[in-house]
Amino acid sequence: MQEHDDIDILVSEVGPRDGLQSIKAIMPLAAKKAWIAAEAAAGVREIEVGSFVPPKLLPQMADTAELVAYARSIPGLVVAALVPNYRGAENAIRAGAHKISLPLSASESHSKANLRRTHDQVIDEVRQITAFIRSLPEAERPGFDGNISTAFGCTIEGAVPEAKVVELARRLMEAGVDGVGLSDTTGYANPAQLRRLVRLVRAEIGTENLSGVHLHNTRGLGLANALAALDEGITTLDSSLGGLGGCPYAPGASGNIVTEDLVFMLDAMGLRTGIDLDRLLTVRQILRDALPGEALYGFTPDAGLPKGYAGGGWGVGPG
Amino acid sequence: MQEHDDIDILVSEVGPRDGLQSIKAIMPLAAKKAWIAAEAAAGVREIEVGSFVPPKLLPQMADTAELVAYARSIPGLVVAALVPNYRGAENAIRAGAHKISLPLSASESHSKANLRRTHDQVIDEVRQITAFIRSLPEAERPGFDGNISTAFGCTIEGAVPEAKVVELARRLMEAGVDGVGLSDTTGYANPAQLRRLVRLVRAEIGTENLSGVHLHNTRGLGLANALAALDEGITTLDSSLGGLGGCPYAPGASGNIVTEDLVFMLDAMGLRTGIDLDRLLTVRQILRDALPGEALYGFTPDAGLPKGYAGGGWGVGPG
Repeated sequence: MQEHDDIDILVSEVGPRDGLQSIKAIMPLAAKKAWIAAEAAAGVREIEVGSFVPPKLLPQMADTAELVAYARSIPGLVVAALVPNYRGAENAIRAGAHKISLPLSASESHSKANLRRTHDQVIDEVRQITAFIRSLPEAERPGFDGNISTAFGCTIEGAVPEAKVVELARRLMEAGVDGVGLSDTTGYANPAQLRRLVRLVRAEIGTENLSGVHLHNTRGLGLANALAALDEGITTLDSSLGGLGGCPYAPGASGNIVTEDLVFMLDAMGLRTGIDLDRLLTVRQILRDALPGEALYGFTPDAGLPKGYAGGGWGVGPG
Repeated sequence: MQEHDDIDILVSEVGPRDGLQSIKAIMPLAAKKAWIAAEAAAGVREIEVGSFVPPKLLPQMADTAELVAYARSIPGLVVAALVPNYRGAENAIRAGAHKISLPLSASESHSKANLRRTHDQVIDEVRQITAFIRSLPEAERPGFDGNISTAFGCTIEGAVPEAKVVELARRLMEAGVDGVGLSDTTGYANPAQLRRLVRLVRAEIGTENLSGVHLHNTRGLGLANALAALDEGITTLDSSLGGLGGCPYAPGASGNIVTEDLVFMLDAMGLRTGIDLDRLLTVRQILRDALPGEALYGFTPDAGLPKGYAGGGWGVGPG
């Protein structure tokens, strides 16, 4: 958060990656650019613009290198990208991503199904990536996070041992990542579990090395989990505009927590995000236009802001 | 909570009142009975079965006296009813409600629009009701709560002074109610505001006299607010099965927090509600059948429970 002294919480928009990779439709490059530009103009400081995966696997992400180049032209925006492996990391760094993150699934069954790799193989790949990053001139080195997916449970294995998550966090740090994030990929997390796991992981790797969580709203608990994370001092929260992407395993169920509702919550609580809520709420129209018929989530966009809402807290003081 | 030693949190189902009064369709009496019976069988301990308002104003509630009589036949169920005034309280007590609650809007404009009474007039009515209750033999006296509606903001006035809410809580206690609840009628609340207001009100009237909150999910913050309430030691939470009723002022926006998602959150956190989640999830079908086309909310019913979920906490221990 050192780059963002004027905000309390960094809302990292992941819709162009996690949202778009979860739907069948391919959003045209121009619409992706318009989305990214509009969110940045609303004050969003970090956007995960795509994933460096083979286009054969995820054609929705085929233009990620172009998007990174475009997003880098927006002043002040941190351009993030997901990388599944060493090759993806090379491509992301070549494209100029400021920050890359690699998912490591706490569930080994999920890791094999998703990344086709065992834990050991993923950790090896992380070591190769950090070695490559360290071989670069300092100015060209991206930030590099490891994200532990299925950290709160897995659709294949069910419950995931907390000790396994703690162990993987330690191994990721040892392999050279700058920090570790926890992802509720399956929407299984609850606030008590989140608090417990954040504390356990921080006790192992240090408080400052776990700064972010990636939450889904699959069972409606997304913002409650976000609140629990805030209570633990987490300062980076991923979210997706319009909750785009839903949950491919559960028709009708929401995917990522919704940027609009998250920012309303943070702003109403008096936490500074740097984001203009009114402007943010207008960005949704870009998704509606570019992805007709695609389900969008979130309640604040439908209900509107409270009467007389002026931002920067609600209900404080004499009223 | 003295009647409920075996649970940590009392989930008070308000759908038959707050849900049904907010939709145009009138649910047949038989379906209402089936709903109440099914929720009670799933372990729900308290249900607000209706409102004692003139049938001319709310024809959806015309059968409330019959429902109270029916619900009283279910062993162990606390039968609650809303009363807008003295006359409603008399009818509710005559029908045999175990518990009655009267709304007092923190916003006087809202009070005049909704109850057609000023604050002073409502407080007078509360005094008359408590006098009437005290005139009854002890075994026939219902519990009597005052619920401060629009406590977190009003669609007419906007922000509501916290000092006004505190003052009204004191005046309600002075007028003889057993306890005070806070209602986020408009879905304006955020977790920071909720914590602050709960503390302020409790400092005025005593911790034990504010045990419950009534939350809406209009802007998606419902369960985050519920979590904040739990953190403050609140032990009674209102909710509505399927979030029935939505928000009449905001098409597409959810109304009450959803019983299914709330109970999943509480249960996953290891808090005892006495409710069997699997059985609870089947009750929704009664609403679908009796109210075809009516929007239902909630994510857990669509997504299902986590793989291997056995209730009574999730993610604790070795996994």
